[in-house]
Amino acid sequence: MKNDKVRKFKTLKSEIEYQGRAFSVRQDTLELPDGRKTVYDIIDHPGAVTIIPVDDAGNIYFIRQFRPATGEILLELPAGTLEKDEDPQECAAREIQEETGMAARKFIRLGALWLAPGYSSEYLHFYLATDLYESPLQADDDEYISVEKLAYKQAVDMAKAGEIRDGKSLAGLLLLDGWLPN
Amino acid sequence: MKNDKVRKFKTLKSEIEYQGRAFSVRQDTLELPDGRKTVYDIIDHPGAVTIIPVDDAGNIYFIRQFRPATGEILLELPAGTLEKDEDPQECAAREIQEETGMAARKFIRLGALWLAPGYSSEYLHFYLATDLYESPLQADDDEYISVEKLAYKQAVDMAKAGEIRDGKSLAGLLLLDGWLPN
Repeated sequence: MKNDKVRKFKTLKSEIEYQGRAFSVRQDTLELPDGRKTVYDIIDHPGAVTIIPVDDAGNIYFIRQFRPATGEILLELPAGTLEKDEDPQECAAREIQEETGMAARKFIRLGALWLAPGYSSEYLHFYLATDLYESPLQADDDEYISVEKLAYKQAVDMAKAGEIRDGKSLAGLLLLDGWLPN
Repeated sequence: MKNDKVRKFKTLKSEIEYQGRAFSVRQDTLELPDGRKTVYDIIDHPGAVTIIPVDDAGNIYFIRQFRPATGEILLELPAGTLEKDEDPQECAAREIQEETGMAARKFIRLGALWLAPGYSSEYLHFYLATDLYESPLQADDDEYISVEKLAYKQAVDMAKAGEIRDGKSLAGLLLLDGWLPN
């Protein structure tokens, strides 16, 4: 327990180096506790939400979609990026409709985490969404997705088998543990 | 189950837009299934490993460190970025020594996942590391970290309470389920 070693670094300089569509890259110059300087590249991300929609039978809605950054079609929990100053639960309510065609009467906040703290400022909020009803909302133009429903145990088994292999989905399943009847 | 909607997009162009230290940013121009074009910013990442070191008593080694991208001191499973062409298990063997001061006689691969598939090509491998013994390796210069040991249930409870809030650590705890005696 060498906790005296752990402390925050002082930011000496912070500059935007690249402005992308979904994020920007900034470069921070930091002063280490021993006085040396170091430089970090950081993805400046507005934050996001992951939704865990669960129907009355206890099944979880997942979506399947192509992910250009991975070159693969992945099975994931629905999620979306926060718009500027957007309330995370409002974002969850919008994204569940866009991605699954369902709306939820009830949202329960399960927590939040840093998705990739080594280089991204993305803070990701998790909501359990229940009391679902059909209410499709036009999805973003480029979303070619399908919906698949899985029981909790089935989803966990698929995660352990590598059939669900997306960071937020595994984290969401851990946070969901204990929330569903049996 | 509208699986016919889900297909890969064709890459028309791919260009490096920013070259950072730990990653680069590339911009891909893609053709959607309906013929329209769209542009994605993608973090080009070499991949990484997360290690779950477990001692003979069943306790898991976590590390506490400042994360400039988040502005917070976080409690996380040990992890590290792959060097070029590096075997993931060799990376795990190196990082566990650098970050915890322990080496492992046994590594068990628990799986792999895309950490942030919305915008990053980071593919993250998970290893359970057991049969530990003391064998410190000089850490990277800028790593000011402390080691903390937690029982599995304690770690899961802390994750649910938001005291561990790092994507890979929650995913790792899900993958670890069933591997430890009780």
